[in-house]
Amino acid sequence: MTSALTDRARALDLDHAPTDRRSLFRLPDRVIYLDGNSLGALPTAVVAAMEDAVARQWGERLIQSWNDAGWWEAPTRVGDRLGSLIGAAPGQVVVSDSTSVNLYKAIVGASRLRPGRSVVLTDPDSFPTDLYMTEAAANDSGLAVEFASPTDALARIAELGDSLALAAFSSVDYRTGERWDLPAITQAAHDVGALACWDLCHSAGAMDVELDRDGADLAVGCGYKFLNGGPGAPAFIYVASRHLADFDQPLTGWNGHATPFAMAPEYVAAQGITRARVGTPPVLGLAALEAALTAYDGLSMADVRERSVSLTRFFRDCVTALVPDIAVATPAEDARRGSQVSLRHPQAYAVVQALIARGVIGDFREPDIVRLGFAPLYLTHADVLKAAEHLRDVLEGHEFERIEFNKRATVT
Amino acid sequence: MTSALTDRARALDLDHAPTDRRSLFRLPDRVIYLDGNSLGALPTAVVAAMEDAVARQWGERLIQSWNDAGWWEAPTRVGDRLGSLIGAAPGQVVVSDSTSVNLYKAIVGASRLRPGRSVVLTDPDSFPTDLYMTEAAANDSGLAVEFASPTDALARIAELGDSLALAAFSSVDYRTGERWDLPAITQAAHDVGALACWDLCHSAGAMDVELDRDGADLAVGCGYKFLNGGPGAPAFIYVASRHLADFDQPLTGWNGHATPFAMAPEYVAAQGITRARVGTPPVLGLAALEAALTAYDGLSMADVRERSVSLTRFFRDCVTALVPDIAVATPAEDARRGSQVSLRHPQAYAVVQALIARGVIGDFREPDIVRLGFAPLYLTHADVLKAAEHLRDVLEGHEFERIEFNKRATVT
Repeated sequence: MTSALTDRARALDLDHAPTDRRSLFRLPDRVIYLDGNSLGALPTAVVAAMEDAVARQWGERLIQSWNDAGWWEAPTRVGDRLGSLIGAAPGQVVVSDSTSVNLYKAIVGASRLRPGRSVVLTDPDSFPTDLYMTEAAANDSGLAVEFASPTDALARIAELGDSLALAAFSSVDYRTGERWDLPAITQAAHDVGALACWDLCHSAGAMDVELDRDGADLAVGCGYKFLNGGPGAPAFIYVASRHLADFDQPLTGWNGHATPFAMAPEYVAAQGITRARVGTPPVLGLAALEAALTAYDGLSMADVRERSVSLTRFFRDCVTALVPDIAVATPAEDARRGSQVSLRHPQAYAVVQALIARGVIGDFREPDIVRLGFAPLYLTHADVLKAAEHLRDVLEGHEFERIEFNKRATVT
Repeated sequence: MTSALTDRARALDLDHAPTDRRSLFRLPDRVIYLDGNSLGALPTAVVAAMEDAVARQWGERLIQSWNDAGWWEAPTRVGDRLGSLIGAAPGQVVVSDSTSVNLYKAIVGASRLRPGRSVVLTDPDSFPTDLYMTEAAANDSGLAVEFASPTDALARIAELGDSLALAAFSSVDYRTGERWDLPAITQAAHDVGALACWDLCHSAGAMDVELDRDGADLAVGCGYKFLNGGPGAPAFIYVASRHLADFDQPLTGWNGHATPFAMAPEYVAAQGITRARVGTPPVLGLAALEAALTAYDGLSMADVRERSVSLTRFFRDCVTALVPDIAVATPAEDARRGSQVSLRHPQAYAVVQALIARGVIGDFREPDIVRLGFAPLYLTHADVLKAAEHLRDVLEGHEFERIEFNKRATVT
């Protein structure tokens, strides 16, 4: 059976050769990296870009680089490039701050775009920071938080009607990898006069997100997962152009001012997405992310998504063939699946550690999830098969029972 | 006269040789860099640290570096190191976000520590982001903003009495370089039961700030000026330990949670300064700042301050001797001066450009300020004299009248 799977892996990799960007990344030998949905691998281009940013732009050109090296405009320049990967025309995305801080801006900003409405609807199983920041922003804006799941979101939106200010969901569940129906939920929110905000942390860079086409109002996401911007890379916020003139976000720092160098005592928001900027931008992080995004040059996100779907589908097939008894938490239907496959196992943490010991890096999520991400740019179907074989060996050999519990879980 | 000044420069540099850290920095040849109060020069240690953070920690060790390389704890680890330069015992400083975002946390947090009080007092000539964020945070907290200058701050605080929640000032004026009386204003705020928050952007790394000794309640500042953390380096926030248990800041991201990896749906603030964290930390920026701070190894801030005072005092003396007619905006009294000397000239912008053409990099501030910063770690008295000689030549030769106005002002 493995031989048939090997043949299939080879055939699929031949089919998908045009979207293989493995050569643009540095990855350690003998590692199968299924954690690009936590921290993307290092794009080779970043190494030289950082050296240039540090030694030449900073070290030699000093403050002159604010103009000459385009530091000042980096948040919108990188935002536009990133926007092209999530279906956003230029002028709607800015890169800065963390996802958490951007969510605060988005939710308070949304409340001000929909005065008189009292509810923000979100998912109780969202990544925790989404829940915490939604709760905080809602409190500070006088909104109540209510909850919906993928199965009842449309009904809950209709039911809330004109009390709903904002529907705020993640387009892919960080734990199960389930993909939410962004177009339908956005439309339902609009049908009752509300807005929709999407957290794209687990979609940007792996999925064919189409914010403009699907009418999303707001979106946020991080730069360090599938976008490969590096540890703690700056995050992004998208505000649809039709809302920009009225987008009034609470963190009115000088970088969002209409004329920052006039040093005027009164805050006047800049035109356009620049008003979503706050403080001095994290230039080194932006340089890394900007270089990382060059790995997408020449690729369409539809092709990236096709490759991603093929990888996760093939992994499911391998698991079905090699480890038929394990429970799969991620939807089988391609259209409902992000770029990950999560398995359930009562000793999930130990299973993850045993896989890592074999060079297959994935992560554990509470309470029982073995989370495996499939970064489409640098993984092949051959990697996928090898990972499934290691999983079989770990489970059949009960290797997870011999793992020492001396490590903490790793980050998001 | 120049010869006497040359002799004095040489003698002063001999006296201050023990605090000369020029060899730890990379600076371009033939540049006298008087803009370290905008963007600090590149510490040599940063180059290797960034290479290691990118190529090894990220590229080879991937997510394992969250534990192994100490990424997760970096905000508090670097915070403690930075704290030692501003008189803060460990456990009170965290490095993350921008100064603007940290100000928002500090001011909203202060309002919650002083419920029932209605006013935040600040300086109308603060750096603009301080004004904008203070206004925003005050609005969002139901506080009114009132204003005071260095000359009437003590009287205004007494007058406001128990309506005052917070006095929020910069310890050094970004434009004039005037040093505010941090101990006296902090004491006055305490005398009426209010808190004091200090913006240390233009003091940290150059002045002998003593937050704990002087009883400051809150402080913020950036990492990219005298601390040399690099362009857009992460900023810091200090919360005095006596307030930590009750410090309730508005940006409740998952990094500030008591048990972030439990992925609990309810926010519970971490003990200690960790609760001032928000989102995933900017690891690359933190790595640069951490390496930059090693330039302070073996120095006391009292000695750094003494060197800084000597440099600025000598620059004033050189200006008096060589350019007696120019107006000096910075106080002559050592104790009232930060680590900069600002001059006033009706064509200040052109004067700055003419100085830059000669390799003396300073900056312009509206409306008429030639702002020259004296980063104590890498400037010598010989540099100071040369800068004054260039200034004399620019003014005597009317070079500023032949400058092309094709550049924007540079950043903060």
